[in-house]
Amino acid sequence: MHIGIIGLGKMGANMRTRLRAAGIEVTGYDRNPEVTDVATTDELVQALPAPRIVWVMVPAGPITDSVIGDLGEKLDEGDLVIDGGNSRFTEDFKHAEFLATKGINYVDAGVSGGVWGVTNGYGLMVGGKTEQVERAMPIFDALRPEGPRDEGFVHAGEIGAGHYAKMVHNGIEYALMQAYAEGYELLEAKDTLISNVPGIFKAWQQGTVVRSWLLELLVRALEHDPNLSDIEGYVEDSGEGRWTIEEAIENAVPVPTISASIFARFVSRQDDSPAMKAVAALRNQFGGHEVKKAD
Amino acid sequence: MHIGIIGLGKMGANMRTRLRAAGIEVTGYDRNPEVTDVATTDELVQALPAPRIVWVMVPAGPITDSVIGDLGEKLDEGDLVIDGGNSRFTEDFKHAEFLATKGINYVDAGVSGGVWGVTNGYGLMVGGKTEQVERAMPIFDALRPEGPRDEGFVHAGEIGAGHYAKMVHNGIEYALMQAYAEGYELLEAKDTLISNVPGIFKAWQQGTVVRSWLLELLVRALEHDPNLSDIEGYVEDSGEGRWTIEEAIENAVPVPTISASIFARFVSRQDDSPAMKAVAALRNQFGGHEVKKAD
Amino acid sequence: MHIGIIGLGKMGANMRTRLRAAGIEVTGYDRNPEVTDVATTDELVQALPAPRIVWVMVPAGPITDSVIGDLGEKLDEGDLVIDGGNSRFTEDFKHAEFLATKGINYVDAGVSGGVWGVTNGYGLMVGGKTEQVERAMPIFDALRPEGPRDEGFVHAGEIGAGHYAKMVHNGIEYALMQAYAEGYELLEAKDTLISNVPGIFKAWQQGTVVRSWLLELLVRALEHDPNLSDIEGYVEDSGEGRWTIEEAIENAVPVPTISASIFARFVSRQDDSPAMKAVAALRNQFGGHEVKKAD
Amino acid sequence: MHIGIIGLGKMGANMRTRLRAAGIEVTGYDRNPEVTDVATTDELVQALPAPRIVWVMVPAGPITDSVIGDLGEKLDEGDLVIDGGNSRFTEDFKHAEFLATKGINYVDAGVSGGVWGVTNGYGLMVGGKTEQVERAMPIFDALRPEGPRDEGFVHAGEIGAGHYAKMVHNGIEYALMQAYAEGYELLEAKDTLISNVPGIFKAWQQGTVVRSWLLELLVRALEHDPNLSDIEGYVEDSGEGRWTIEEAIENAVPVPTISASIFARFVSRQDDSPAMKAVAALRNQFGGHEVKKAD
Repeated sequence: MHIGIIGLGKMGANMRTRLRAAGIEVTGYDRNPEVTDVATTDELVQALPAPRIVWVMVPAGPITDSVIGDLGEKLDEGDLVIDGGNSRFTEDFKHAEFLATKGINYVDAGVSGGVWGVTNGYGLMVGGKTEQVERAMPIFDALRPEGPRDEGFVHAGEIGAGHYAKMVHNGIEYALMQAYAEGYELLEAKDTLISNVPGIFKAWQQGTVVRSWLLELLVRALEHDPNLSDIEGYVEDSGEGRWTIEEAIENAVPVPTISASIFARFVSRQDDSPAMKAVAALRNQFGGHEVKKAD
Repeated sequence: MHIGIIGLGKMGANMRTRLRAAGIEVTGYDRNPEVTDVATTDELVQALPAPRIVWVMVPAGPITDSVIGDLGEKLDEGDLVIDGGNSRFTEDFKHAEFLATKGINYVDAGVSGGVWGVTNGYGLMVGGKTEQVERAMPIFDALRPEGPRDEGFVHAGEIGAGHYAKMVHNGIEYALMQAYAEGYELLEAKDTLISNVPGIFKAWQQGTVVRSWLLELLVRALEHDPNLSDIEGYVEDSGEGRWTIEEAIENAVPVPTISASIFARFVSRQDDSPAMKAVAALRNQFGGHEVKKAD
Repeated sequence: MHIGIIGLGKMGANMRTRLRAAGIEVTGYDRNPEVTDVATTDELVQALPAPRIVWVMVPAGPITDSVIGDLGEKLDEGDLVIDGGNSRFTEDFKHAEFLATKGINYVDAGVSGGVWGVTNGYGLMVGGKTEQVERAMPIFDALRPEGPRDEGFVHAGEIGAGHYAKMVHNGIEYALMQAYAEGYELLEAKDTLISNVPGIFKAWQQGTVVRSWLLELLVRALEHDPNLSDIEGYVEDSGEGRWTIEEAIENAVPVPTISASIFARFVSRQDDSPAMKAVAALRNQFGGHEVKKAD
Repeated sequence: MHIGIIGLGKMGANMRTRLRAAGIEVTGYDRNPEVTDVATTDELVQALPAPRIVWVMVPAGPITDSVIGDLGEKLDEGDLVIDGGNSRFTEDFKHAEFLATKGINYVDAGVSGGVWGVTNGYGLMVGGKTEQVERAMPIFDALRPEGPRDEGFVHAGEIGAGHYAKMVHNGIEYALMQAYAEGYELLEAKDTLISNVPGIFKAWQQGTVVRSWLLELLVRALEHDPNLSDIEGYVEDSGEGRWTIEEAIENAVPVPTISASIFARFVSRQDDSPAMKAVAALRNQFGGHEVKKAD
């Protein structure tokens, strides 16, 4: 099998490595000349045997739009585009419909695993027609972790279902991280009693109910920096977390922990909170409570 | 009627003023010689006609304990102690039991209204035996706002019920303030569209569903400082808010908005968040996402 | 002044009444022949003096779209359409742009006050060009509560700002209601101590920090049904609450109390919670805790 | 080594099994004659070689109090009591102080692992004097999972630190479960797109960021009952979750996800929500929105 990848950033380049290691021939394209295999997407298209498979691994949004638009021009009927990036599932509907006008097939693939995927394998959630998913199965089998296929791969439903599942995965991920983080702060705060916070997390790795991969990562981080003194409590968020809330709202699903997690990230990035200024102002008004003067 | 007040801070002194304006004779004691009417609590006790009524208006906790302990020594059977401070309702059980061993009566009074109470009157929530509450009614009538008694005063139940109602009042108050504050931040954030944030709050004062006294106070604050630039978003919390959560937990009552309000205050006082350090560390571990280095 | 109103439901009919009482001539159209003044919107347009003003008061979404589409066909250059319904502010951009192609002006008006507005007046938040807002001021003055204009009316900003402010108003409203509701449940739960829950709410009406119009309404409800035994805890939500969360997410504004309020409504409408089934299943799996069997 | 266990319920009996399998002699006492090794605690004390070690594994609260009171009477100076139950850490201070008056030593041990611990080993968090912890190390080594000691065992600090760490562990556990549960509900709700919810959870087991032991348990549950139709969404909570919130409040630590998790459990057990009755009543009052009549 010989496929193309467009986008050779951290994720795309690692996936190329893993695919090649599994014996799949890969031609990769990236704007960065230092990592690309070909100079143009035209070259990429020419390099691939028909019917072609092209895996798109670029940032969600306008860049993915533009890459898929370009592929729509250059690919032929019967080819297959797989969007492995973090696109919103609603984008899949649009992309699939556009490509379908040219007779080009489409599969969406949510990919989890981060920088560890190249060695551990990637968790894959896929949406699309069964026939197309089957066709790409050697790719999925190469990318996913070893072991039973259904423990690292799922055909979740129609087009969009892969990215939807990945979106929910990330929403859960946000809340899991926040849960450990709240526990960490509680243990840190009780320093009159608790003398070994990193040791507690380390000890939770076997036998406990809270053991997980994220826990292992937190143990690693605490081994490196036992009270996280080098790190500022400033946390970005990405599209999937936000879309999860929007889908929850749309479907009337209560998501108190996922929303709390994303709000905590918003607060973490504020120098000062307009809302808490308002609360301070109110307390001052009714109770004569002093406010802290801003500098 | 002639009563004693112990504690002539901002609240106690204002209440003495309002009571005297209503024709009630008041002898006040405070450690501060500039505001006290008598030099000692012995003098206070001697100045009052028996059976005496003493209103305690000192900080909740050890100071209230100590004042009530002192009164237990000095008052006589049939006297009445009213705790108008912000004691936890569980303290009322202890104080009433102690005083009862001396035959001294007890009423707890939750008081709302802040610095505005001296002119507007105070909202009063009272717990205790009907006979004792009736006995102190002239005091309550003088302190509460003008108008129908039941719109500014309630006999909420047995001993402790007054402070319990006040505790819940404050828990609600926290969430109301947070609600307006979130709305304020949303309007501030949309400065590409919204050109008159203070004007919006001002306009909500009549006819809308959200009109309230707190809204009026926020309007005052915004008239003084339209974007709250002089104020830091740093907010203290007091016992009642915390006790409300503890009671909710104890009685299995979900209180998501009240707890969110108190957590927002906790965060507002942190220089950096240990929890968010942990989340940042985790993101760095699995995704190679950069962290902000602490200074 | 003589204006048209399209939509004579509960809100629109009341507004017609209030406008007429203020001396403004109103021709109203509604599909319901029992309440309409004219048989068709053509008749409505013919009845109005040019340049015309038409107030649209129909459900947000497709119906508003259709009414504005119809007006775009029938009105003339220089006429003014005011959308007083609960449209999302993003719809205003679309509607204004469409009407502008015909030279028709547009103002959006958020309206608060519910069934009480006909007597108390409506709180009004308006967006649009100053010239057009000025032109409609007699209407706003008639609809808003008596008293200073700026306590019941605001020109909040450009087109969309009125509905944006109303959206935030409703988000706040959700959280305010939830705050009182949590306090109510806490007081109800403590029935060993609290003997007079309705009396407590009634007493909070004067002098307290939590006094508000919503509190007065809760007092009314409790006077009618002291423990709300006739009412099921089932609560709908409307667009504005949801849009508020979406805007918060879009602008990275933490809104923990507003989101908690909307999630509480989602839960209130569920017969059983899929999420809590999953938690019950998990507890059963790791701890052997018994689950309640579904019927 | 030969130790005693008091309490042979699900956890205690399993621990006896695991200890014996590791070559530690165990004499167990339980009120239930079918599982006990001795008829009375007197017999248990006589059966053990001095200085004795007794592991207490009974329900937290009065029963633990009573067992430790009994042991205080019957044990000798130099003996060691280990409370392996789910006691609140503040109880440890009381129990240790009481036993110290008799010269009896004390260690608190938080134990995680549920019904799986007998085969997988138990995660152990221990508080107390180093000397006493060392003394009991063969027991801890037998109970904890195989592998490095510090991945299943921690000496977390002074007396109380073990139960404190376990309390935080359970608080985190609540939020982790709720996170997966919210994701589950989101996937279930999107049944127009997602055709394989159990398969998605199964596929998350390898390679993803959200892989964990709880996830594996959810997969098991879904394999047994793919849409959890046999289970009602009714979830109990135990002391540790509540204490976690109380400690958070006490230490001003924001715990939005942990509190959201416990509130979701409270709601899950309500037939109807008093709070949501109040919200429904309010909506009816201001907007004339219909309420659902209670039966």
